[in-house]
Amino acid sequence: MQKIVYKPIGIIHSSYKQREGVPIQGALSRNSKGKVEVFPEYKAGLKDLGEFSHIILLYHFHLAKGYSLLSKPFLENEKHGIFAIRAPKRPNPIGFSVVKLEKVIGNVLHVSEVDIVDGTMLLDIKPYVSKFDVRTGTKDGWLTEKLKGAKEHKADDRYSP
Amino acid sequence: MQKIVYKPIGIIHSSYKQREGVPIQGALSRNSKGKVEVFPEYKAGLKDLGEFSHIILLYHFHLAKGYSLLSKPFLENEKHGIFAIRAPKRPNPIGFSVVKLEKVIGNVLHVSEVDIVDGTMLLDIKPYVSKFDVRTGTKDGWLTEKLKGAKEHKADDRYSP
Repeated sequence: MQKIVYKPIGIIHSSYKQREGVPIQGALSRNSKGKVEVFPEYKAGLKDLGEFSHIILLYHFHLAKGYSLLSKPFLENEKHGIFAIRAPKRPNPIGFSVVKLEKVIGNVLHVSEVDIVDGTMLLDIKPYVSKFDVRTGTKDGWLTEKLKGAKEHKADDRYSP
Repeated sequence: MQKIVYKPIGIIHSSYKQREGVPIQGALSRNSKGKVEVFPEYKAGLKDLGEFSHIILLYHFHLAKGYSLLSKPFLENEKHGIFAIRAPKRPNPIGFSVVKLEKVIGNVLHVSEVDIVDGTMLLDIKPYVSKFDVRTGTKDGWLTEKLKGAKEHKADDRYSP
C-alpha cells in the first residue's frame, strides 16, 4: 500500500495539556484561545492571511494510538462509524478545526474558538471562505438531536491514551 | 524533522481526468458528481454516515509536485501566501472539500458538488455538522471582491504538473 508522508509545518499551543477537558468543538467555545506557531521557513506563506476572520487548521492527532472503525463519540452512548463522527482515533488521525483568527504577529497566529491539545503538530492552514464552506439546511445525522440547545461541552477521558 | 505517515483509505472518482477544467470549488458547481470508493477494510467506519447530507473529504493532491509559498490563485492575478489560498501546491498537499452526500451503496459514496480530480487518494471522511462548521459574518480577505456574483468557475492550467 502506498504511503503518504507529510511533515509538521508548525505547532499549536493551547491551555489544554491533555484531551480531557478540551472543548469538543471550537464553535461551542468562543473564548477558548490559543497560538499557532508556524515554523520560520514557512512564514512567507502567511502573506494576506490576516485579512480573513476565520481559518481552517489541519493537524495530526498526536495522542491518538491506533483506531477503531466503530466508536462512541462525545454527547452519545451509541457506537457510530468513525467517518460519521469527529473522534481522533481514525485510520489517518487528521484533525480539522475552524478557528477565529484574532491577529497575526510575525510567524504566530493568535486564534480563538480552539479545541486542540497543546503541542499538536500543524499540517496545513487554509482560509475559511463563506461562499465555499458554508452549507445551510444540512442534515446533521445522529448529532441533530444531541446538539439541540448545546453550548459548551468538554471532553471526558474516552480518547485519552 | 519528524515525519507523519498516512495511507490512502480509498479513491475518489470523478469525470475530471486532469486539473484543467475542474470546478474551483464544489459549492459553486452543485451538479458536479463523483463517487468516493472506500476500501473494503474500512467499510464498517461508514456506519450512520448516510444520515448526513454533507461530508468533509480530506485527500492527497497527488498531481501537485513541490510547492510555492507565494502563488497566484484562481480568480486572481496577485500573489498571496499559500496559506491564504486553496491551491494544491502546498507544503503538505492536503485537499479539503465539502461535498453533498447523495447516497451510500456498500462501500461507495455517491456525491455531488465535486471539485476533485479523478483518481485522487482519500485520506479521511468527516461528517459536516452545521453547528460545528458554519461561521457567519466572516471576513473572506482577498476573495471578498472576487466572489461577488460568482457562480461556476473552472480551473485553468496553472496548477497542472
